[in-house]
Amino acid sequence: MPQAGQLVMLVSPKGKRYFRIVNPEVTLHTHDGKLEMADVLEQGFGGQALTHLGRPYSILLPTLYDLIKGVKRHTQIMYPKDIGYTMLRLGVGPGKRVVEAGSGSGGMTLALAWFVGDTGTVFSYDRREEFSELCRQNLDWAGLASRVQWFSKDIAEGFEQTEVDALFLDVRTPWEYLDQAAAAMTPGGTIGFLLPTTNQVQDLLAGIEKSSFGEVEVLEILLRKYKVNAERLRPDDRMVAHTGFLIFARKTTRYPCPG
Amino acid sequence: MPQAGQLVMLVSPKGKRYFRIVNPEVTLHTHDGKLEMADVLEQGFGGQALTHLGRPYSILLPTLYDLIKGVKRHTQIMYPKDIGYTMLRLGVGPGKRVVEAGSGSGGMTLALAWFVGDTGTVFSYDRREEFSELCRQNLDWAGLASRVQWFSKDIAEGFEQTEVDALFLDVRTPWEYLDQAAAAMTPGGTIGFLLPTTNQVQDLLAGIEKSSFGEVEVLEILLRKYKVNAERLRPDDRMVAHTGFLIFARKTTRYPCPG
Amino acid sequence: MPQAGQLVMLVSPKGKRYFRIVNPEVTLHTHDGKLEMADVLEQGFGGQALTHLGRPYSILLPTLYDLIKGVKRHTQIMYPKDIGYTMLRLGVGPGKRVVEAGSGSGGMTLALAWFVGDTGTVFSYDRREEFSELCRQNLDWAGLASRVQWFSKDIAEGFEQTEVDALFLDVRTPWEYLDQAAAAMTPGGTIGFLLPTTNQVQDLLAGIEKSSFGEVEVLEILLRKYKVNAERLRPDDRMVAHTGFLIFARKTTRYPCPG
Amino acid sequence: MPQAGQLVMLVSPKGKRYFRIVNPEVTLHTHDGKLEMADVLEQGFGGQALTHLGRPYSILLPTLYDLIKGVKRHTQIMYPKDIGYTMLRLGVGPGKRVVEAGSGSGGMTLALAWFVGDTGTVFSYDRREEFSELCRQNLDWAGLASRVQWFSKDIAEGFEQTEVDALFLDVRTPWEYLDQAAAAMTPGGTIGFLLPTTNQVQDLLAGIEKSSFGEVEVLEILLRKYKVNAERLRPDDRMVAHTGFLIFARKTTRYPCPG
Repeated sequence: MPQAGQLVMLVSPKGKRYFRIVNPEVTLHTHDGKLEMADVLEQGFGGQALTHLGRPYSILLPTLYDLIKGVKRHTQIMYPKDIGYTMLRLGVGPGKRVVEAGSGSGGMTLALAWFVGDTGTVFSYDRREEFSELCRQNLDWAGLASRVQWFSKDIAEGFEQTEVDALFLDVRTPWEYLDQAAAAMTPGGTIGFLLPTTNQVQDLLAGIEKSSFGEVEVLEILLRKYKVNAERLRPDDRMVAHTGFLIFARKTTRYPCPG
Repeated sequence: MPQAGQLVMLVSPKGKRYFRIVNPEVTLHTHDGKLEMADVLEQGFGGQALTHLGRPYSILLPTLYDLIKGVKRHTQIMYPKDIGYTMLRLGVGPGKRVVEAGSGSGGMTLALAWFVGDTGTVFSYDRREEFSELCRQNLDWAGLASRVQWFSKDIAEGFEQTEVDALFLDVRTPWEYLDQAAAAMTPGGTIGFLLPTTNQVQDLLAGIEKSSFGEVEVLEILLRKYKVNAERLRPDDRMVAHTGFLIFARKTTRYPCPG
Repeated sequence: MPQAGQLVMLVSPKGKRYFRIVNPEVTLHTHDGKLEMADVLEQGFGGQALTHLGRPYSILLPTLYDLIKGVKRHTQIMYPKDIGYTMLRLGVGPGKRVVEAGSGSGGMTLALAWFVGDTGTVFSYDRREEFSELCRQNLDWAGLASRVQWFSKDIAEGFEQTEVDALFLDVRTPWEYLDQAAAAMTPGGTIGFLLPTTNQVQDLLAGIEKSSFGEVEVLEILLRKYKVNAERLRPDDRMVAHTGFLIFARKTTRYPCPG
Repeated sequence: MPQAGQLVMLVSPKGKRYFRIVNPEVTLHTHDGKLEMADVLEQGFGGQALTHLGRPYSILLPTLYDLIKGVKRHTQIMYPKDIGYTMLRLGVGPGKRVVEAGSGSGGMTLALAWFVGDTGTVFSYDRREEFSELCRQNLDWAGLASRVQWFSKDIAEGFEQTEVDALFLDVRTPWEYLDQAAAAMTPGGTIGFLLPTTNQVQDLLAGIEKSSFGEVEVLEILLRKYKVNAERLRPDDRMVAHTGFLIFARKTTRYPCPG
């Protein structure tokens, strides 16, 4: 059941979504009329509350997927299809310590904070103060800010952590920061990158060849939706064809080559 | 640093992977000669230990991705591309209570156990005793068995849990168990399915229409790998073209239609 | 060089395309000012003619691709990605005799007429008179009508041809017309189908199993475009994800199964 | 009906394909026993002839698709999915004059020769004498050699034709030959390229920017096959994920930029 102070997702009859911290004394003004948050509390998750015009709003506990789609954004945020695979590939999970750069609007930060739990920490870097701030607001909104530390600094100067379990580098020229990344990571840890163009992927691969990273993988993930119709099942007419290339590598400690 | 009793992943010069619980008194017999686990302990994660023939084995802390690829399997297991997205879509995370059926070889169980952490629980059902056992062995091997409870029973008789946060139904005819699933779930929770054929998807969609589930989504995820070559970047020649269709829906509590 | 009476494609500075039969006495009124067709004749293919406002219009000989994109349509027409593969798969080429149903807006008819040349014939069926007419207009416009014969009749009554080299059945329930199709085709000839939903594909496959067709293939063709930018090469953000499933089969004359 | 001297395709019970010029005095020795070509002639297209062991061989008129799959190859040949779209995009058709380089094993040459018909001509260049020879043998085998002229020369020295309708440049560094290609083409004609790596595409785009070609398009075509099973329809498990990027452009004659 939702409790006062908790984040709920309210879905209108037309599918519009409202995220609100539950406060039983508040009235939400919607296009469908007034909705009493006290009613929302009473009906509980999975139920529906009626506006004063009698229109039903569904009351849902937001999943990570809902939260990511709900963040306030000033930049393109990562897509769930890319985030899900990245979590698994980086080995993010409860108790892990993870660095990301840049913070951006916080879509990725939110996922990292979700999965590291109360026993883990996310260290989120962005050179641009306004993005650190926006990211913090979005994590606050989702109730996950306590798991994140923000750093508004240029990563060319290095990260302040060492021995982190994983690192995600979502910047335009990641090949310039490979040494700084390696210095922050635990040996054997996994680093991830997201890059939109093939030219950048080529530059990154050339950079990695000269770095202490190995076991490199380059891939892209495509998500194809279908029309939900038992009698006429078929893929949607159009789809997102490209978000970015994902690149993963592992920090290694190699024996010096003989000779 | 690895500690005695911990699971490490050892990678041979040719890329062969060995998963072993570290015991400093043990010697591992490889195709490249004998490897002393005491050396592995000493070199630590990210380092390399030499066999008695002088061949270097890399020592890595396995990520979830490594573990999934390493499970002993008697059935096809879910692919990381499908697992990652499903975790996010179901809202799996630290502290969550999640049901899955069937257990199979435990690839999905492993991911669920990884993400719910020590404060969450996975309830894993399989009618076939031998799969419950295999799944348990694989979770033991990965050190995550304490987060899972197994049930060797027919889910037609219902699940023993209620109010679980999410449910994953990986069985051949899931439309036969929608009522049982709904009874186990918290209102607003998300259910997921994986089905290989379009005929099954059609049958499931027809079943969902008559159920208490809503907000249905049908999709598939494609992962395309690239050759790791800065000078000659190109997709791999061949790829996995199909694993299954993913279907997600939400447990709703609807107002009765006015009649 | 274009000749009076020939079809030319004129492309405006903004990329708008005009298809016109060249008549040197005509003036074309465009958003960029008046364009004298006499100038078009003089500048010739690959050249540019200026409007009275000094804006250049490129003069091109339309390819089949241009023509298909230029047909006047009242229905969805087949995409070039599907047409090209179908031509090859059906063995369409100079001198071939090919049946199609239905005519629709004539996109496919145009391609068939293009490839069979002056020595081949296309027999185009549509139950709906208005589509036979629209199709004929489009073929007239493209200068290919002499290679096509139209039939406004219900194909349930059968086709009027026999021994045709190939047949393309673009109707909603093609499994109802398999006998009629087989009767029209030469033994060993190839039949093609385009169907949007998996339910239809399933019904067609079930029908083909009981028919005299064999060597069945089901497939779909995806075309992914890239941004044309040498410095920032990447796929387009969005793409057409589905037009239809293509099914091909061959008319066989089987020995009776020994009983 | 097949005639003596014509190419037929014979398909064994296990699906093995034999292409043979029909000669009624010849006996074909197969893994299923001896097959009399006189029987093949008698049974005709779409029929079946029995070996002396009583095993049925289907007799088919090869389509272009069959021929392309049947050519004797020393190099990777283009895939039908890429060839079909290219034919349409280049505007190849009866009566057209088309240049290609290189000849390779002749898969593309065969398609070009098929579609230009007896009234068109294919000019096929390859620096390597042995490939001109192999290509010629394959076209001879398919009965289409009379439509092709071969040139064993370095295209850096230019093509011997002018005003050709279309040109296909399937070489490793096509950006080195853009001027030669433009000199051979009719204004407004379309040029096509097939390149396996993104690095090559980038180099080609950079080259085209400085050339007299415009209206550039970069794309790739994916073909996904399905299991032919009405009760269990699903995509194949694996697919060809990459053959090459297709690039198309048009020869333009631009007004000089003012100023």
